[in-house]
Amino acid sequence: LESTSLRPSGNSRLVLYDFSAEPGNNELSVKEGETITITNPNIGGGWIEAQNSRGDVGLVPEDYIEAPVFQGGGSIAPTPSGGNAASSDLFVFDAFAPTAAPAETQASNGNDPWSSWNTDPSGGSNNNWASNPEGTQTGRGAADPWGSHGHPQAYQGPGAEDDEWDDEWDDMKSTSGYPESESGDSGAIQRGGHASSMKISLNKFPGFSKSGPELYLLTKQPIKSKDRLPIYMGEVGPVWSYPTTQLDCVVADPKKGSKMYGLKSYIEYQVTPNTTNRPVNHRYKHFDWLYERLLDKYRSAIPIPSLPDKQVTGRFEEEFIKMRMERLQGWMTRMCRHPVISNSEVFQLFLSYKDERDWKTGKRKAEKDETVGMMIFSTIEPEGPDLDPLEVEQKCEQFSRFTKAMDDGVKEILTVGNEHWKRCTGPLPKEYQRIGKAFQNLSSVFTSSGYQGESTLTDAMTAAGKTYEEIALMVAEQPKKDLHFVMETNNEYKGLLGCFPDTIGFHKAAIDKVKEGDQLVATSKITPQDKTMMAKRVSVMSYALQAEMNHFHSNRIYDYNRVMQLYLEEQVKFYETIAAKLRQAHSQFTTM
Amino acid sequence: LESTSLRPSGNSRLVLYDFSAEPGNNELSVKEGETITITNPNIGGGWIEAQNSRGDVGLVPEDYIEAPVFQGGGSIAPTPSGGNAASSDLFVFDAFAPTAAPAETQASNGNDPWSSWNTDPSGGSNNNWASNPEGTQTGRGAADPWGSHGHPQAYQGPGAEDDEWDDEWDDMKSTSGYPESESGDSGAIQRGGHASSMKISLNKFPGFSKSGPELYLLTKQPIKSKDRLPIYMGEVGPVWSYPTTQLDCVVADPKKGSKMYGLKSYIEYQVTPNTTNRPVNHRYKHFDWLYERLLDKYRSAIPIPSLPDKQVTGRFEEEFIKMRMERLQGWMTRMCRHPVISNSEVFQLFLSYKDERDWKTGKRKAEKDETVGMMIFSTIEPEGPDLDPLEVEQKCEQFSRFTKAMDDGVKEILTVGNEHWKRCTGPLPKEYQRIGKAFQNLSSVFTSSGYQGESTLTDAMTAAGKTYEEIALMVAEQPKKDLHFVMETNNEYKGLLGCFPDTIGFHKAAIDKVKEGDQLVATSKITPQDKTMMAKRVSVMSYALQAEMNHFHSNRIYDYNRVMQLYLEEQVKFYETIAAKLRQAHSQFTTM
Repeated sequence: LESTSLRPSGNSRLVLYDFSAEPGNNELSVKEGETITITNPNIGGGWIEAQNSRGDVGLVPEDYIEAPVFQGGGSIAPTPSGGNAASSDLFVFDAFAPTAAPAETQASNGNDPWSSWNTDPSGGSNNNWASNPEGTQTGRGAADPWGSHGHPQAYQGPGAEDDEWDDEWDDMKSTSGYPESESGDSGAIQRGGHASSMKISLNKFPGFSKSGPELYLLTKQPIKSKDRLPIYMGEVGPVWSYPTTQLDCVVADPKKGSKMYGLKSYIEYQVTPNTTNRPVNHRYKHFDWLYERLLDKYRSAIPIPSLPDKQVTGRFEEEFIKMRMERLQGWMTRMCRHPVISNSEVFQLFLSYKDERDWKTGKRKAEKDETVGMMIFSTIEPEGPDLDPLEVEQKCEQFSRFTKAMDDGVKEILTVGNEHWKRCTGPLPKEYQRIGKAFQNLSSVFTSSGYQGESTLTDAMTAAGKTYEEIALMVAEQPKKDLHFVMETNNEYKGLLGCFPDTIGFHKAAIDKVKEGDQLVATSKITPQDKTMMAKRVSVMSYALQAEMNHFHSNRIYDYNRVMQLYLEEQVKFYETIAAKLRQAHSQFTTM
Repeated sequence: LESTSLRPSGNSRLVLYDFSAEPGNNELSVKEGETITITNPNIGGGWIEAQNSRGDVGLVPEDYIEAPVFQGGGSIAPTPSGGNAASSDLFVFDAFAPTAAPAETQASNGNDPWSSWNTDPSGGSNNNWASNPEGTQTGRGAADPWGSHGHPQAYQGPGAEDDEWDDEWDDMKSTSGYPESESGDSGAIQRGGHASSMKISLNKFPGFSKSGPELYLLTKQPIKSKDRLPIYMGEVGPVWSYPTTQLDCVVADPKKGSKMYGLKSYIEYQVTPNTTNRPVNHRYKHFDWLYERLLDKYRSAIPIPSLPDKQVTGRFEEEFIKMRMERLQGWMTRMCRHPVISNSEVFQLFLSYKDERDWKTGKRKAEKDETVGMMIFSTIEPEGPDLDPLEVEQKCEQFSRFTKAMDDGVKEILTVGNEHWKRCTGPLPKEYQRIGKAFQNLSSVFTSSGYQGESTLTDAMTAAGKTYEEIALMVAEQPKKDLHFVMETNNEYKGLLGCFPDTIGFHKAAIDKVKEGDQLVATSKITPQDKTMMAKRVSVMSYALQAEMNHFHSNRIYDYNRVMQLYLEEQVKFYETIAAKLRQAHSQFTTM
């Protein structure tokens, strides 16, 4: 979208794209063509604060508005290849923008089989890692033992930690030496943040275009087989090539680091892979950068779940750091388990860069990777016969149904689990405590009777009352020991499953394009050779999808088996401990 | 209260006393001097249905309104000795009228130390055996497993079972052969029902008068020592004389009986004492008659807790019959345990009458007993030195504080217990069921994956889900096994404790009267010998109160020890069973 109007001066800016604010996030809805006034340009993470003509103030993605003249040449605003940003590309935008653009636009894309997912009040099912399916955006609330805030969620705030933003500028930059005020496409990438990088990637990488999958299906670009991704025929069907030793890593030891003479602080985690056993340090921003690279590169074939949410307030609180670390660990483990991701150059860089210079060089290289978007399929080599288009379609449909049904089931567990969490940390322990207090109070009255021979009864009654108070505390603490892991696993899968609608939608678009094959040849739009090539290519896509589903199922069975065993084990211990305490209390009564 | 106006004709009636309707019982509030119209005279149990001038219709105690001329000579309405019924005698009325007269009038009696008890929304603490301390008048509600109606309460309906009323007329009659339309004092007694008999007893028996305890303290009536009640000095202090073998009985085997060729039915229970081992049959009405006799005779010295409530609807339902029988058993056991009550002629008659004739003769004799009200103290013979008035007062104060404090403690347990009951039979099992369903649903989705090797996981997950559904059922059923007995015991004690304010109030009045002793001698109202006699007599009253408190404490310790052990034992079993089920569910998962 080229700006045709005169560039405004001062703090006024022209809005280039429609933006609908996410409720509760201090965002401001703006419309293409509107003029707004910047009230605070230093929010960071790709956001600025602005005011509209009605006086409303809120956050707007920086890339959605035109850059002022004085910030240097060129427009920061991306110019996606062809057409309006409100076209079908937006369904790709949304997939890439976990927190920025609203999910409602996805509903307009008829290709998306799960458009109903996006009416999820929690703000989009796809990538809201920690979102409460019931849409409550509460804080962690674990301090109050009788508070019942539900399973701890990271606060879904606007954009990145703002004071982290500015100081990491030189880390984030890769291709140019320009200072912070740099503009231009590569400069915008370096801002990180979801909205801007994704829009730039559309511009920069030809794999996705508004015209759909043809660019891969019909591309004449020679296949660079440097990074082959073979797919073998296994017992269960098509499978990726798995390494003999599975990669693993530990995320631990959070420490406070700082820059600019302590003016800016952040938390750093140590990441230690089982290959080198040498720890490397990474802050959240690095994980986010890695996530963006993986998304760019593999998204169309492999679901890349989003990271735990960014948070603006409470970043240094112990409980938050612990939870974030646990979730980063989960994310890293899942990435390590994936044969393709774990073996990728960018992932290896992240886990084992030698020094700062190595890190910076590696980052620049990764950002320049052109085998991204749909081009990933050009590196995939199935070692099996071309698949029949009908079979391709059937498999696609089967996966679509399964992932949708599992998504429903997972959400049900999350809903029920969250209510159970609230009950177990609120009303239920309170009730046990009241029971305990009532027994103790009556015992106290008995003690005042003046009748001899009270103490055997009263001591035992008081002990029984105290036992119920202990049970109350146990009940309140128990969800952290068992239910927590059920919630975490299901949240992970909710995130993973949220990646599939786009992937499957994309596959369906490709299948539909292949179906048009005869017609396209008849109308001389493509040659018969093109038609054959399209069929072959959609077969490659299907192999990839099947290999990915088999990977998904295998991990799913492992994960659910593990978490169910853990849950039940802890539940057994819980009830046995309560029984033991009550037995002890019972023994204090003497038979009269 | 003599009626001075012309007697109204037809169905119009003059209201003799203020009556405040109990909410939710279809009663009608009426004011002294108001004219109302009878719409249904055959309600029974001492109630009639009437309409006021505003058109409101409801139930009114029959004794509160003037009798019509045509029902025979004399006024059915009682004429209490002296003065207005709204005087301090009403505090006695209320104590005797568990369901009829409102409790609010008791607040006006300054002598009542616990007048605040009568603001209990459940309608008076004294005698509402089964009342829910939170005032909910719900039905039994045990049919719906997820209904959360609180601990089962007998419905507090108006008056007696009406169809039992009429047919038992010949049973109830004792002194005259008049048919149902008989009027007169003795006729009114025979109506049973609480309101009428109590008003008549005031009239008939001189022990209570509106002038207070003087009638005992100063009575010159010779002591008939035929039924001596000795009080000995035991280890714990003054004690009643206990039998070597404790009397006991079993209430069981409820059967439907009927009269008038099956037109009127009722439930009969078999009562078998451990002395004769010969069962006798009694219906609720008989228990009620026994209760009235014991109340008349012993009330001023011994707390006589009220029976389980009367109920008009649902009397033949199995669950109600079972609950009523359980409670009648509890009541009988408590009466059996009391050395004075168990040994009384009327109680012995109830347990071991030989035949119908013996029963009727015995009943007439019991109804004529004149050693009732305060005169019971004239049969009590403490075998110890006369007590110092200061000690008498101290003891009285101690008991007053204790019984009040215990009443608070008992009510706290009942409140907490009732809420716990509701939670355990409603929201909590529902939650476990939802958890179970969620596991099963996800397992079901997994089964549809088409991936081989699902069944070990899915079978185990489904079993885990079903286990939680079983746990849900267990949770819902558990209160009946443990909490029920805690509630019953505490309800019994609430009833017992409810009897003390009057007794203690009466003692305090006696103590106060003795304190006035010097002044009364100085003003020549009494002689010095009278003063000495009053002190001696109040000492007798104190011995009786102490013996009764020691009996109370001893039983209390036994009862609470027993019920706490039972509760904890069942709780242990409950949690152990849950743990075992979960262990079993856990074992179905295989370690992968």
